[in-house]
Amino acid sequence: MDKKIPYKIYLSEEEIPRQWYNVRADMKNKPAPLLNPATLEPMSFQELSGVFCDELCRQELDNDTPYFDIPQEIRDFYKMYRPSPLVRAYFLEKALDTPAHIYYKFEGNNTSGSHKLNSAIAQAYYAKKQGLKGVTTETGAGQWGTALSMACAYFGLDCKVFMVKCSYEQKPFRREVMRTYGASVTPSPSTSTAVGRKILEEFPGTTGSLGCAISEAVETAVSSPGYRYVLGSVLNQVLLHQTVIGLETKAALDKYSIKPDIIIGCAGGGSNLGGLISPFVGEMLRGEQQYRIIAVEPASCPSFTRGKFAYDFADTGMICPLAKMYTLGSQFIPSSSHAGGLRFHGMSTILSQLYHDGLMEARAVEQTSVFEAAELFARVEGTLPAPESSHAIRAAIDEALLCKQTGESKTIVFGLTGTGYFDLKAYEQFNDGVMSDTVPTDEMIGQSLSKLPKVD
Amino acid sequence: MDKKIPYKIYLSEEEIPRQWYNVRADMKNKPAPLLNPATLEPMSFQELSGVFCDELCRQELDNDTPYFDIPQEIRDFYKMYRPSPLVRAYFLEKALDTPAHIYYKFEGNNTSGSHKLNSAIAQAYYAKKQGLKGVTTETGAGQWGTALSMACAYFGLDCKVFMVKCSYEQKPFRREVMRTYGASVTPSPSTSTAVGRKILEEFPGTTGSLGCAISEAVETAVSSPGYRYVLGSVLNQVLLHQTVIGLETKAALDKYSIKPDIIIGCAGGGSNLGGLISPFVGEMLRGEQQYRIIAVEPASCPSFTRGKFAYDFADTGMICPLAKMYTLGSQFIPSSSHAGGLRFHGMSTILSQLYHDGLMEARAVEQTSVFEAAELFARVEGTLPAPESSHAIRAAIDEALLCKQTGESKTIVFGLTGTGYFDLKAYEQFNDGVMSDTVPTDEMIGQSLSKLPKVD
Repeated sequence: MDKKIPYKIYLSEEEIPRQWYNVRADMKNKPAPLLNPATLEPMSFQELSGVFCDELCRQELDNDTPYFDIPQEIRDFYKMYRPSPLVRAYFLEKALDTPAHIYYKFEGNNTSGSHKLNSAIAQAYYAKKQGLKGVTTETGAGQWGTALSMACAYFGLDCKVFMVKCSYEQKPFRREVMRTYGASVTPSPSTSTAVGRKILEEFPGTTGSLGCAISEAVETAVSSPGYRYVLGSVLNQVLLHQTVIGLETKAALDKYSIKPDIIIGCAGGGSNLGGLISPFVGEMLRGEQQYRIIAVEPASCPSFTRGKFAYDFADTGMICPLAKMYTLGSQFIPSSSHAGGLRFHGMSTILSQLYHDGLMEARAVEQTSVFEAAELFARVEGTLPAPESSHAIRAAIDEALLCKQTGESKTIVFGLTGTGYFDLKAYEQFNDGVMSDTVPTDEMIGQSLSKLPKVD
Repeated sequence: MDKKIPYKIYLSEEEIPRQWYNVRADMKNKPAPLLNPATLEPMSFQELSGVFCDELCRQELDNDTPYFDIPQEIRDFYKMYRPSPLVRAYFLEKALDTPAHIYYKFEGNNTSGSHKLNSAIAQAYYAKKQGLKGVTTETGAGQWGTALSMACAYFGLDCKVFMVKCSYEQKPFRREVMRTYGASVTPSPSTSTAVGRKILEEFPGTTGSLGCAISEAVETAVSSPGYRYVLGSVLNQVLLHQTVIGLETKAALDKYSIKPDIIIGCAGGGSNLGGLISPFVGEMLRGEQQYRIIAVEPASCPSFTRGKFAYDFADTGMICPLAKMYTLGSQFIPSSSHAGGLRFHGMSTILSQLYHDGLMEARAVEQTSVFEAAELFARVEGTLPAPESSHAIRAAIDEALLCKQTGESKTIVFGLTGTGYFDLKAYEQFNDGVMSDTVPTDEMIGQSLSKLPKVD
């Protein structure tokens, strides 16, 4: 064990970042604006503020301000579970017998089990500050809903979560965490919204979808005085809040004068990856440093590696604004996978632009190989990882094994976004040897992409 | 917020204790020895070493050596998840509007979800060092089995867990964590042991019991060359390993010159409470300091508050050695409760002697009030606590509310032994308002105590 670098590098609470970093300020090619689907004009503050909190709309639209102050109330909450440790994966390095140095930023040591809390508390704070009664959202696997219910409990805000019905029934434990934090959790589609009733009439036995839950949450927010809608990924504001991950990572590395060669994160909507890499990409954009950055996505939902860079709807219901992003098409239905957090057809517009401009690589991995990596990691590093995070573990292991072949002692940093304590059905399938890998055919993706909206 | 004391007091990895503290060395009245049930003579090293690892037998029997070195390999593993934070409960203090200062030592931030890992890794290490192939154990709720499977994966030891059949079926997620770490998990009673087959023949539909699982695990260890049996609580050796909790707590408090007035822990078999209080009790025994120490137990299984200080069997099967302890009788069946880790009829002999000698208080609390405390704690402090740990939270809140009445600014320290991520069935009952409190009648306890073995 390298005595100079501890197993876990902890910053002090005083070193929790005081500002979020807005990477858009350093981008020459700014991410394309959200478009109003009716007019195809960029969404204005006024249009957005009917759905989102005012301050969050400002953050969403601001491509120029490089830093945003983190309000003290949010920093106080961050102290409950931050700074999160940057862990030197000594035991994994030893198990792989690699000359590579591996580090991971561990965001799972809080009851929400993931990095989602970083943005949930910010969004709840701005809602409270605006004098709102509450917020609405949707949740699939339940991580975002859990994080938001914790944040709302802290600020005494009402929290209405629409949970995809099949998850509501299959993941009762996630539901109960949210209820314990005082959220109301409604299986979607429900009879409490017009869109829910319409869907139930058309498809009486449906078990719901994320697109439908989004529609119900937005409808409820817009039609309830004192409520706004909040979203846990994809948006610029969410990436902004998540930069606490990257800023802390960089501060911890700087403490020991460590310069990473490769930075790896899993990518669904992009909030964790964007947050982790922003400060490093900023250095690249300003010509100060070079890094290899790798986005890892599931082979079942490969938006970067097999999608198209185009304007598309963010939701299957096609009622949300259009975003220019790498997309598989809003009608693309990814095959069943255990990394629910990575099953989004599109991608953050910021990350899409960075990828388009050659600042990042991307690769797709199949889930059985992801769980092989997860099991090895759990056994040697002690923490049971979330399926989403395990995509990053897979790529980090593969890079470390390449180092073993070449004899290079590269420094690899990856984001361990969360724990797998609520994903044990997936581990059970893996343990029983009955996990399958389903990858979409070119024809499936082609068909879905042929239905992209015509913009430009 | 008191600026001088951070929200979380972290020690450095170098400050992880290098020795465990053996409180027996400072006890004038030593805990009574285990007795061979056949001869009623104290169990010898030779008798014990057929069941337990040699080094662990030595630790079990040693009432004199005040400190035991922690081997470097165990300290390396401890670095994965230790030092654990001592948290100042600023948010709970604020919610209670109390002048009390509340701290908790949080042992749940590891995949086993509890403090059990502290002893599991020690026991696995000594088994490995002795050249054994593997270990056997039983698990009820699954915390101990999970911790042991993690420890065995680390040292490459085989791990055979007998899991009470009803838990095996009702808690498939715990089972899958253990399997992911490579343990074999067998529902008990099983057909793989003579005692299991006998029980299955007599009671074909039985869903098992901890006593039966212990018997199967011991039989398997004794009849398999290269195997020993390990246990996660009650024993002197386990309390010894768990003193890392108390030693770290004391080191963190000393850093800020904080002297606790009250130290609180939940008590089932006593491993967490014993580990937490040992260094403080040592000071009391040596006449250096005074503390109020409170053991909190469930009203459904009140061994301290309603049991008898007498020799009794540690298992319902009455095959294990006799221990002198506060007991409700080995045939006592506690009513159903969600704090599975506290459902033991007896108590550590060390803690029993300390309680008998007036060094500790004890109180019993009902589970609905425990979950009220758990819910409040989760909402303001962010962490969803285990039902067991929430017994300590209940007592800490009650003491803090007393301070509010009297205006005293006492310093309260309690042990937050684990997280409740695998206990959401219990939270669901609480959220649904259908949780019940069942307390044994005097007649039930009297009947059970009338069957104590006749010793002395």
